[in-house]
Amino acid sequence: MSTLGPQTLGELGEAAVLARIFPRLPESGATILGPGDDAAVLRAPDGRFVVTTDTMIHGPDFRLAWSTPHDLGWKAAATNLADIAAMGAQPTALVVALAAPADTDIAVLEGIADGLRDACEALAPGCGVVGGDLSSSATFTIAVTAFGDLEGRDAVLRSGARPGDVLAVSGALDLAARGLELLFERAVDDSGAADAARAIALRAEFAAELDAQLAPRPPLLDGPAAARGGATAMLDVSDGLAIDARRIATASGVRLDIDSTALESPTSLTGGEAHALLATFPPEVPLPGGFRVIGHVREGEGLSVDGIPYDARGGWDPYVDGVR
Amino acid sequence: MSTLGPQTLGELGEAAVLARIFPRLPESGATILGPGDDAAVLRAPDGRFVVTTDTMIHGPDFRLAWSTPHDLGWKAAATNLADIAAMGAQPTALVVALAAPADTDIAVLEGIADGLRDACEALAPGCGVVGGDLSSSATFTIAVTAFGDLEGRDAVLRSGARPGDVLAVSGALDLAARGLELLFERAVDDSGAADAARAIALRAEFAAELDAQLAPRPPLLDGPAAARGGATAMLDVSDGLAIDARRIATASGVRLDIDSTALESPTSLTGGEAHALLATFPPEVPLPGGFRVIGHVREGEGLSVDGIPYDARGGWDPYVDGVR
Repeated sequence: MSTLGPQTLGELGEAAVLARIFPRLPESGATILGPGDDAAVLRAPDGRFVVTTDTMIHGPDFRLAWSTPHDLGWKAAATNLADIAAMGAQPTALVVALAAPADTDIAVLEGIADGLRDACEALAPGCGVVGGDLSSSATFTIAVTAFGDLEGRDAVLRSGARPGDVLAVSGALDLAARGLELLFERAVDDSGAADAARAIALRAEFAAELDAQLAPRPPLLDGPAAARGGATAMLDVSDGLAIDARRIATASGVRLDIDSTALESPTSLTGGEAHALLATFPPEVPLPGGFRVIGHVREGEGLSVDGIPYDARGGWDPYVDGVR
Repeated sequence: MSTLGPQTLGELGEAAVLARIFPRLPESGATILGPGDDAAVLRAPDGRFVVTTDTMIHGPDFRLAWSTPHDLGWKAAATNLADIAAMGAQPTALVVALAAPADTDIAVLEGIADGLRDACEALAPGCGVVGGDLSSSATFTIAVTAFGDLEGRDAVLRSGARPGDVLAVSGALDLAARGLELLFERAVDDSGAADAARAIALRAEFAAELDAQLAPRPPLLDGPAAARGGATAMLDVSDGLAIDARRIATASGVRLDIDSTALESPTSLTGGEAHALLATFPPEVPLPGGFRVIGHVREGEGLSVDGIPYDARGGWDPYVDGVR
């Protein structure tokens, strides 16, 4: 214990840690009963709620040498809320289960709480943290479950694309993957280990790419906007455009044809973690928000690029590809 | 890879693992849209839903040498659903985020899925798994978020106990803690490491204690029953009766007095992970389900036993007490 008083989670204990974190967390407009009891109670105004869960794990999903605590909180919120938005729902709330080594400094958790708050405020105003859990673990882990409100609309599924629809995307497809490539090439030391000083210098030089990877800004408001605007299918591009477009094709029983001239770079087709929204719209409707056309829905199956079948896998599997 | 074909998560890959697990999972009666899209959609019939999250981590929360995979799934469901029941809500659904080393055998995940299913069927019929996430991690981790339906009633909070109420409990207070003591004393090898063979022999001898620790059966139906029966306050006894009773006392601005003759053993006061339901009821109402009186609500503050103030902490803090 330093002369500044207890600073690690182990020195402070669970109650003191929670007392330091709770005031920093964003409040949810859907809260009926917030943290502090056995469970929270939330509003579901149309008698339904949307739910998704996604976990970030030190090693496969992030490096503490590359991400600031604020980045971690931001990304954990943003990526989960993107799955809510991809259903056409308005994000309303999060619960956060955090597991960290006992020697973790409280400042790390405070930074994560600030990142959760700032991401909610910037990307999904009114969304907040309604509950959580704090555990001791050898592996730093952030498991988030997110909620949304369909506001009386049908959910936009992967299965609704129809031949003749346009294929459109909102958000960058290649920046996050290029950011990760840059980190692995240039933010490592001579042994290949993640290097914090080099990551800071790299971020100053390639802000757009590294921000897209470390603190992404998925266009969450375009999810409900797409639903209101008549989207027939939609998903969050998390594993790469090729993999995720094929998911819509399979679920809808159609072929998706991508126009290569509409893509920023070859990385757009395979780069993971874009957290862009990929949607199909009837040809006659004006595209809402930031959506731009990148292809068309055709009869058939699978994925093609400029009309030529595209069978490469593309993208990333946490088990097959392992820890990079 | 063995001649039997791929068996580990790393050999199979995420899609094949999910295809093996999904058919084993229990379905939820609240499902509008189940797993397979970006998010699930659930019913919230009275326009609200109850939510809680709790994580089990290899090391502090379980040992693979002591728990079977079926135990792990069972306990992850049961402990989360106990927090839902403690609000007076009917458990409806779970989402499960599982992180495991890439060399984990698929049979472990199948066992966890079976445990989740059997716990839902036995303890909360109609409750099921509506979504999840699978990650690669050095530390085996099961993060569950659980949902419930208040069926139009008010939630039963910790803050509603009134002087004159009786204090009652449903479920055993000491068995789970005695089970853990037995495991640490007798299911370890000479170096103190968890020993699977000794755990199996011990479980045959002390089934009630070890089952209560490794595959608890919290009286989930008594949560909604308590709410219907007029409970004024309620919580799930997870950190020990002394700690948890004090939480009701603090939230309600009362003193709780426990009658020591009503407790099974001294362990009842301090033993963690009981997952019994502790509730207060007006003196005139008949106690529902398995509730039995163990004390009374008085004016004042804090906790007393047979009228004598009880100030010992009792129970367990994941950071202060560290990894056992």
